[in-house]
Amino acid sequence: MFIEKADKYYYHYPFPVAIVGVMHNNKVNFMAAAWHTQISFSPPLYGVAISPKRFTNKLMERSKAFSLSFLKYEDYKISGFVGRTSGKDFEKDKLFDINYIEGRKLNVPVIKNAVCCYECKVIDHRTYGDHILYVGEIVGIHYDDEFFDKGISKGLLLYAGNDMYITTKEDSIVKFGKEEVEEILRAKFKGQ
Amino acid sequence: MFIEKADKYYYHYPFPVAIVGVMHNNKVNFMAAAWHTQISFSPPLYGVAISPKRFTNKLMERSKAFSLSFLKYEDYKISGFVGRTSGKDFEKDKLFDINYIEGRKLNVPVIKNAVCCYECKVIDHRTYGDHILYVGEIVGIHYDDEFFDKGISKGLLLYAGNDMYITTKEDSIVKFGKEEVEEILRAKFKGQ
Repeated sequence: MFIEKADKYYYHYPFPVAIVGVMHNNKVNFMAAAWHTQISFSPPLYGVAISPKRFTNKLMERSKAFSLSFLKYEDYKISGFVGRTSGKDFEKDKLFDINYIEGRKLNVPVIKNAVCCYECKVIDHRTYGDHILYVGEIVGIHYDDEFFDKGISKGLLLYAGNDMYITTKEDSIVKFGKEEVEEILRAKFKGQ
Repeated sequence: MFIEKADKYYYHYPFPVAIVGVMHNNKVNFMAAAWHTQISFSPPLYGVAISPKRFTNKLMERSKAFSLSFLKYEDYKISGFVGRTSGKDFEKDKLFDINYIEGRKLNVPVIKNAVCCYECKVIDHRTYGDHILYVGEIVGIHYDDEFFDKGISKGLLLYAGNDMYITTKEDSIVKFGKEEVEEILRAKFKGQ
């Protein structure tokens, strides 16, 4: 199928859920984001696209910092709760009993049972179309080391679009890297 | 656990694999990327972070366009092949028999058996740390409608870090959106 334009498009989903946390003058807010990416190793930078309509923006303009918490699949309700309500109407942390601690390096809320949480200092923001891309420098990383097996995450919460959540199938894990590719190339060029 | 800095960090993985395709003067190249995100609905914008060391950059500077192909889990070798070799050394499409067609709107290679492929016109690029963030306007979308069930992807290829690939667990799919949240709120505030 080919289309020139779609109002909404989710063909690249599922995508990890990132809970954006902001804090300013003891006001805390969380929102769910599926539009985010790592951008650089050195310095460590991470970007997240947020609609200017979001309450999170108002706090972010002042706090100039945010946290990104990634969740376990079993905590999908946290994402639905903070993704489908607005900080204009509710204090989400209290209403939904979201446990957080304050960041170690920044004034940001770090969700307690997250798989990992990046503390990010805003170094740039730029409007692209109907969203603002915030770029943050990661100045602290919290993670639950029991959740990872040799660096591989065990059951991350992914957003599948249309209010649906999904996770990974552990026994589908497969390795195919430099060694495997080089072996195939050696066999291919053998005798040439 | 808390760390201030990590040379590399993959705590937010697994992430969908995007194969970046570029074409210039009949020279074609593909690379694998795990750093990418949607940025805007209107206009539809998508960003991908690419190291300036990559051969892809050289072509992109000229072509000012790229494609992003998302793959089925079973095609993980395509990602390993193009991710672990360089266009400086090989013509990857020929070496690895990667079947593609030319884009309908742009001069970009569209991988034939991809789940979906976005044709992107570069509208901005910006260096952040050790990568360049390319922002592309999606001017065409190819997708395999048999791969989606009510808009939900059935087994996308995800990159788990360290040359490992994984996919989703179909029976873990769960819905938790506006309706479910509102029902919980109604019950909570009942009688107040």
